[in-house]
Amino acid sequence: MGKRGTRREQLRKIIFEAETPAGKAFDIVLLVSILASVVCVSLETVSAIRQNFGEELRLFEWGFTILFSIEYLLRLLCVPKPLKYAFSFFGMIDLLSILPTYAGVFLQGAQSFLVIRSIRLLRIFRVLKLVQFISEASVLAAAIKAARHKIIVFIVGVSCSVIILGAFMYLIEGEENGFTSIPRSIYWAIVTMTTVGYGDIAPKTIFGQSFAALVMILGYGIIAVPTGIVSYEISQAFRNRCNTRSCRHCTLEGHERNAKFCRRCGGSLMGLW
Amino acid sequence: MGKRGTRREQLRKIIFEAETPAGKAFDIVLLVSILASVVCVSLETVSAIRQNFGEELRLFEWGFTILFSIEYLLRLLCVPKPLKYAFSFFGMIDLLSILPTYAGVFLQGAQSFLVIRSIRLLRIFRVLKLVQFISEASVLAAAIKAARHKIIVFIVGVSCSVIILGAFMYLIEGEENGFTSIPRSIYWAIVTMTTVGYGDIAPKTIFGQSFAALVMILGYGIIAVPTGIVSYEISQAFRNRCNTRSCRHCTLEGHERNAKFCRRCGGSLMGLW
Amino acid sequence: MGKRGTRREQLRKIIFEAETPAGKAFDIVLLVSILASVVCVSLETVSAIRQNFGEELRLFEWGFTILFSIEYLLRLLCVPKPLKYAFSFFGMIDLLSILPTYAGVFLQGAQSFLVIRSIRLLRIFRVLKLVQFISEASVLAAAIKAARHKIIVFIVGVSCSVIILGAFMYLIEGEENGFTSIPRSIYWAIVTMTTVGYGDIAPKTIFGQSFAALVMILGYGIIAVPTGIVSYEISQAFRNRCNTRSCRHCTLEGHERNAKFCRRCGGSLMGLW
Amino acid sequence: MGKRGTRREQLRKIIFEAETPAGKAFDIVLLVSILASVVCVSLETVSAIRQNFGEELRLFEWGFTILFSIEYLLRLLCVPKPLKYAFSFFGMIDLLSILPTYAGVFLQGAQSFLVIRSIRLLRIFRVLKLVQFISEASVLAAAIKAARHKIIVFIVGVSCSVIILGAFMYLIEGEENGFTSIPRSIYWAIVTMTTVGYGDIAPKTIFGQSFAALVMILGYGIIAVPTGIVSYEISQAFRNRCNTRSCRHCTLEGHERNAKFCRRCGGSLMGLW
Repeated sequence: MGKRGTRREQLRKIIFEAETPAGKAFDIVLLVSILASVVCVSLETVSAIRQNFGEELRLFEWGFTILFSIEYLLRLLCVPKPLKYAFSFFGMIDLLSILPTYAGVFLQGAQSFLVIRSIRLLRIFRVLKLVQFISEASVLAAAIKAARHKIIVFIVGVSCSVIILGAFMYLIEGEENGFTSIPRSIYWAIVTMTTVGYGDIAPKTIFGQSFAALVMILGYGIIAVPTGIVSYEISQAFRNRCNTRSCRHCTLEGHERNAKFCRRCGGSLMGLW
Repeated sequence: MGKRGTRREQLRKIIFEAETPAGKAFDIVLLVSILASVVCVSLETVSAIRQNFGEELRLFEWGFTILFSIEYLLRLLCVPKPLKYAFSFFGMIDLLSILPTYAGVFLQGAQSFLVIRSIRLLRIFRVLKLVQFISEASVLAAAIKAARHKIIVFIVGVSCSVIILGAFMYLIEGEENGFTSIPRSIYWAIVTMTTVGYGDIAPKTIFGQSFAALVMILGYGIIAVPTGIVSYEISQAFRNRCNTRSCRHCTLEGHERNAKFCRRCGGSLMGLW
Repeated sequence: MGKRGTRREQLRKIIFEAETPAGKAFDIVLLVSILASVVCVSLETVSAIRQNFGEELRLFEWGFTILFSIEYLLRLLCVPKPLKYAFSFFGMIDLLSILPTYAGVFLQGAQSFLVIRSIRLLRIFRVLKLVQFISEASVLAAAIKAARHKIIVFIVGVSCSVIILGAFMYLIEGEENGFTSIPRSIYWAIVTMTTVGYGDIAPKTIFGQSFAALVMILGYGIIAVPTGIVSYEISQAFRNRCNTRSCRHCTLEGHERNAKFCRRCGGSLMGLW
Repeated sequence: MGKRGTRREQLRKIIFEAETPAGKAFDIVLLVSILASVVCVSLETVSAIRQNFGEELRLFEWGFTILFSIEYLLRLLCVPKPLKYAFSFFGMIDLLSILPTYAGVFLQGAQSFLVIRSIRLLRIFRVLKLVQFISEASVLAAAIKAARHKIIVFIVGVSCSVIILGAFMYLIEGEENGFTSIPRSIYWAIVTMTTVGYGDIAPKTIFGQSFAALVMILGYGIIAVPTGIVSYEISQAFRNRCNTRSCRHCTLEGHERNAKFCRRCGGSLMGLW
């Protein structure tokens, strides 16, 4: 039992961590498999490719599904609390990555749900997380997290604007110019305000175009707000990462990363961290 | 009379404030009602839904209208100066939220004005204001307020550019390529400069396309200006909020982070934090 | 002669300056006239309005032209060096604002050049300049001026990218998919990279769409560069405006605008400016 | 032999450097030739111009090709290690600039590869580099280099989002609404998220449009991230350039503006400026 526990522990280290060479190799194989399987899922939907290489793609698909199934079972096996893992965010994604292929065999209408397999891609973030490829990501994440209240306020404001502007556009242009309902007008307002501008719905009357011009200029100006917020938070997040030391002698803060002496009093900064 | 005054005061606290449990409940009910009524107004304009659920939607609509009417009357009742409230910004919006439904009964042509009810959504800001859900909003508002002079200068400059560029495009492309008048060309210039780009009007001649390319690059560069302004103002606004130490001697606030002495009276700021 | 000189001087003060009440009134009348005449020029090109109110608009137009002609002559009269004024930037614009109307009488083909009158709008900047409505504009202008070298470097880089990307797109998509020539492909590249996206030319092959996706992501990322440059320059420009004082006692710079004592040594900052 | 070495050295100075008058003249001639030849290549693809001036353009083209061939041979001759140059980045581009014209004579199908000549434009950067026209470019390059890790993280995140959003859109809209395959849906997601919005593929169902609205708002907010990153890095890069004081004792550069002591050796920085 002790030996089995050790083996399980070793397996856990290979699958969930990336410190050992075996763990690194596992992560790389997994990363390549995920990317390859997502490419397969995508290509299968292109009719020209499906007709010519449909058999091969289905074969590959089954290969990846079996691979991911084994991986899923191994994860369940080596984890201390299998149920907790099964209902965790990544546990659910792991299951959803393999279920559609099996469901496609037993259920007739499940063909269209094969697309759900593309959420396999989310598993990449697990690998990246384990490998700790990117310490920068955490700073970005911290900046976005710090800005989340402001961004929610901003989104509530923009949503209200978009609804009211859409309703007024419905009133101005009317159903005969393509603005057939308020939800559709709201869709137009979002398309316009975010400067996407498909052109599938566009104002045709003079009043509609004048109003649209106002919406555009508004959207053009409003984009400055989230940019300003995120810029500020990113600069704060990086500043915080760089400067958390203070001088023992004069308490000055904000030293550069590689500073060895206080820039004001000349006292040593060494031996502080 | 004293008792009635107390009751009125209690009512005012429930309706206009959000400190008491009853006040909070009132705000939440109001918030949900506003959102639900706006969804109803929107869905009513979708012809498929109107044909199937028209009766139910009209019923809901009358329910919300009566609810908001009672609320409006209660507000008028419990406010110290009813007339001042009636002519205030939110008073007008409260009235405009209910009038169109009544007008639709008596007037035949008022059907199209039912859309005006969507400005009910603006009432959300009253609720948010009361609940004080968002202290962040005030910082954003302060930043935009501080930037308003610069933004007006920017908008005047962009407006002039857009008019002149539109007029020249009318000269270059002419009426046979869709630029049928200067106002329409100005509309095109706004659509292009804000990078919306519907494609309903697009230059067709070589000269027109070259000129359009210039306008696009100009617009692409110009967007940096409001972003820069707002970024700067937001960083200023948050910096000001962060430095909330106040001087012991003269109570001045807003000192810089590393300040040791009050910038107004010269008193020491040390030993305060 | 002395009296005439005084009168001329008085006229100059009214026309070119805005300190006196008469000068202010003159500027406001001029501002309104410019805006009204540009509105007339624009409306004249709308065929529906031209057919119904063509006579009235032509009458107004002559009124404005005569008004601006008198103004131009008065400017020539009261200026110390009339020739220097006539060949200055605003002098040329003043002349170009009135010439097309006169030319329309004598020349038959000059009709289309009537649009040139829209550059009258540029004269607004003279009025704004005189009234000194906007001291903020100078800070913005300073920021853009300081950033001009970087912006030129950026534009040269973007132009080269756009030409090479356009040429490759011509190779990939070919003439049968709407990319009929390299200049047209370059136009497409500019439309795409600036995120305008008309949709009049769009890639149709798989390779073309993949390449276009790269161009879009490139353009999406590249917009960060001018924004970053201008943000930095604006913050520098405003910082410079605020803080040009240094403490007599400890030479610390960067005091807030209303600071009376040095924030580091507590020494007085008074009597320095 | 010694004399020939000197001549070779002189040639090298003219061709590769820009200090001597001859070197400057050579660079200017080269710059003009490159621009003119790229204009020729572009115009040749316009069918109207090719039919009328095809002969002249081909003549010019051969002139430029011979000129660049001579230049390429001279570069090979005067460089100390010709092989190393031939396989360097600019050496390859120099060769690719002339090869297509010669290939067009011997091979029949090589006509379409004539477009490759447009990469001649890249040679402009060599000239600019030599002339050192732009010291600003290096600061921008430094900022982008410093931001590269964050930008890679950002691009990986956006790529994953775009693939997953595209796959879901394929599921929602289906093949009958133009979303014929997942790769095409991913192309749509990129077009939408970068706010380009051609409109060649646009959602038609209610669910598709709601989902698209989410994608747009996401893209609208996400653009703030690279802008924030680059803004921060540019401000850092310029700040670092400004502080060019170096320590007398240990020659360390890059001190903060108000530093009084070297942050590495603790020596005084006073009395240096």
